[in-house]
Amino acid sequence: MIRSVEEHQQAVLGLLRYSSSYPADSRTDLDGGGTELPLAAARGRVLAVDLQAPVSLPPFDNSQMDGYAVHVDDLGPAGGTSGRTLRVGAPIPAGIEPPDLVQGSAAPIMTGAMIPGNTGAIVPIERVTPAQFYSAADYEADAELTVDLPDTVEPGAYIRRAGSDIPAGATALAAGTLLGPAQLGLLAACGIAAVPVRRQFTVLLLTTGDEVQEPGSTPQPGKIFDANTTLLETALLDAGAAVIRHRLMDDNPTLLREALAAVADSGIHLILTTGGISQGAYEVVKQALANSSVEFLSVAMQPGGPQALGTIGGVPFLGFPGNPVSALVSFEMFLRPALTAVAGVPHPRVVLTAALEEEVSSPEAKHQVRRGWYTPRAAAGEPVGTVRLVGGPGSHLIHALAESNVLVHLPTGTGSLAAGDLVSVWLVDGMHGAPSFGIPAAHPLAVAGPGNP
Amino acid sequence: MIRSVEEHQQAVLGLLRYSSSYPADSRTDLDGGGTELPLAAARGRVLAVDLQAPVSLPPFDNSQMDGYAVHVDDLGPAGGTSGRTLRVGAPIPAGIEPPDLVQGSAAPIMTGAMIPGNTGAIVPIERVTPAQFYSAADYEADAELTVDLPDTVEPGAYIRRAGSDIPAGATALAAGTLLGPAQLGLLAACGIAAVPVRRQFTVLLLTTGDEVQEPGSTPQPGKIFDANTTLLETALLDAGAAVIRHRLMDDNPTLLREALAAVADSGIHLILTTGGISQGAYEVVKQALANSSVEFLSVAMQPGGPQALGTIGGVPFLGFPGNPVSALVSFEMFLRPALTAVAGVPHPRVVLTAALEEEVSSPEAKHQVRRGWYTPRAAAGEPVGTVRLVGGPGSHLIHALAESNVLVHLPTGTGSLAAGDLVSVWLVDGMHGAPSFGIPAAHPLAVAGPGNP
Repeated sequence: MIRSVEEHQQAVLGLLRYSSSYPADSRTDLDGGGTELPLAAARGRVLAVDLQAPVSLPPFDNSQMDGYAVHVDDLGPAGGTSGRTLRVGAPIPAGIEPPDLVQGSAAPIMTGAMIPGNTGAIVPIERVTPAQFYSAADYEADAELTVDLPDTVEPGAYIRRAGSDIPAGATALAAGTLLGPAQLGLLAACGIAAVPVRRQFTVLLLTTGDEVQEPGSTPQPGKIFDANTTLLETALLDAGAAVIRHRLMDDNPTLLREALAAVADSGIHLILTTGGISQGAYEVVKQALANSSVEFLSVAMQPGGPQALGTIGGVPFLGFPGNPVSALVSFEMFLRPALTAVAGVPHPRVVLTAALEEEVSSPEAKHQVRRGWYTPRAAAGEPVGTVRLVGGPGSHLIHALAESNVLVHLPTGTGSLAAGDLVSVWLVDGMHGAPSFGIPAAHPLAVAGPGNP
Repeated sequence: MIRSVEEHQQAVLGLLRYSSSYPADSRTDLDGGGTELPLAAARGRVLAVDLQAPVSLPPFDNSQMDGYAVHVDDLGPAGGTSGRTLRVGAPIPAGIEPPDLVQGSAAPIMTGAMIPGNTGAIVPIERVTPAQFYSAADYEADAELTVDLPDTVEPGAYIRRAGSDIPAGATALAAGTLLGPAQLGLLAACGIAAVPVRRQFTVLLLTTGDEVQEPGSTPQPGKIFDANTTLLETALLDAGAAVIRHRLMDDNPTLLREALAAVADSGIHLILTTGGISQGAYEVVKQALANSSVEFLSVAMQPGGPQALGTIGGVPFLGFPGNPVSALVSFEMFLRPALTAVAGVPHPRVVLTAALEEEVSSPEAKHQVRRGWYTPRAAAGEPVGTVRLVGGPGSHLIHALAESNVLVHLPTGTGSLAAGDLVSVWLVDGMHGAPSFGIPAAHPLAVAGPGNP
């Protein structure tokens, strides 16, 4: 049976939503129980509950400018009675609760300071005469300091109203929000010091194969070093998941079956293996799970065609093919989007349209995913950037993968494309091999920036 | 003196490159000394040195397919002598060093297995007869198993050549490379278990102001909770920097001066303060550093106009304004790009062109940075996505900041723009407030995807 990419994406999503025999504690955590973390520790985590603002922001009317607070009765209906001279009252720094204004006097007030009672407007310091604050020495030398207002003062000007950013009781952040600097800064501004977050989605990662040996060991003839565990572990960590690394397992189905059974009740959300699911004579995952609920199938995708999906002891199970590029493409196409849907993290990839720098052809019956180097458009008038393919379609080309910054999509039915034809590319964070990508426009530090205004 | 955004960007870059009185150990580390970390721990760090591949990838000629290895002398010059029947030799699983092929026989070989000597080509299992491998029982039952080749076999087909991804001795990754999953996976594939990384750029973060109180404490009249420390700490962590939080400091210049002097020789790369650098009567940073090399200036930017820059005891110093949005915009416009340039991390923001969903105006003499919500283009035919402004230009609107996913640039001279006019937006990771942004196209999980093919 050959599945389409879309069908398998739905199957993986369904698997991660699968609940009947899921560990109860995991489900609760995913649904919103969670733990409470200090703000900085919650970076990259997902909010477990709707959070209401316990205070208004701003918490009180405050001044937007350094200037003078003017009494409401010293302003005409439309500010027309201004232009007058007022006595200067005591300065109002930020951080104090000032006394009410007295008619006929204006109080020097600093940005962010609480507006005194009876204030009609704030007049910025540069609009009054003298256009700078009196010094402490001035106050000591002269008991009757005065200030001249401009001809017009708009009533209510330069007052930031309490609650104008968010009123107390309103939802500050919704459950499921990914907590980045702005969200955590908002919580701090609300006075919240710790935040309930969802439990991280926890993946047990297991690489199989007689031919695989640990990095750092002495190279053996016929063997290769295990790239998949590091590749998928770091990709999962980037995606906000927690990862438990299993030791490498060789091609012994009995031992693998025992190992998988042993981990299935440890409260993890997903077992993820690489290798051993294809059409060869020694496919250890396939052999170990031959009489189980796990399904072995082909997806019309290149690389990453062989896939396995099911449950082991009630725990969701995915098997990815063993070539590193196949494993990463499988992660990007199937697991990462499903994690976004069920766990709220990571954010989806940014999708751009790019013009091919060269012709390309792909098998019409498959969705081919190539590695590429995206260059932003060179000028504001050009609608899209361009993409150059990096390496061939081979699923073993991990150096080419490390030198790419996008995945290039050639969906089923594409066949041959000419230079200049448009394709969809996914920006893949952490896959940028060089620091010259996407330097902000209008930016003099840019080495190879897009140059748009 | 009013500086342009570009001038201040250059000044900040120059400051971070400043070296004469920089702590010697920090310089060494930044230039490539660094420490060695296990691969997974090096995620998000920057490679300190050029790394050569200690082995070729692939390390040996290996099979791209499950199939049969055929002797070079059993193939004609152009594969024309195939179609013959060959004896079946011993299977070659991945992970072993196989014996040389004998003419007249073909060896079952698995994907990734080492190619035996004398091999002319690999023929995929589905192209031979029988089109599946013999079982162990077949081997036991029949001593003379045979396989029929197809009519044509391309010489050299389906052999992945040693070094075709990268030859031993070639540069696998260049110094300065940001280490993500693909780069770390590549190192693992090369057998490398630990990697030398640059020391993290270390920032001492200090928020000032009588009006500021710690989140979690009881709200006091006239005071606000400190959002800046959390906002900038997490933004700096996202940017790959290390952060030392200083306790809040009130508006006492003497105490602040003493505190800054005390930290200046602690091996940090940058002192960053917020607040106290504007035109008010109580500007603690300005007062504390009045007779120092630190310069207080205005940048033609909104928000984030007031800026301070210099050194304290030889350590680079930046002062950002105290409003949270001003502080974050200052970080994005000045510090983050300079960190990319000097530390190799983070990657620059992705810049997109977007059509305004509404009219907007900005002060012509300033580069205004607004917060917005970017929506990818709805159909493949549309060249760009759209952007809706979130909140007004006010620098205190941190809830609006938390609900935005882009910074919208209205450069100097922009003035008024109409709905549909194009603007540059920066995608700001960690600022996405909702999970519906940028869901990959051609993706059935998409809630609000762009829909391009």
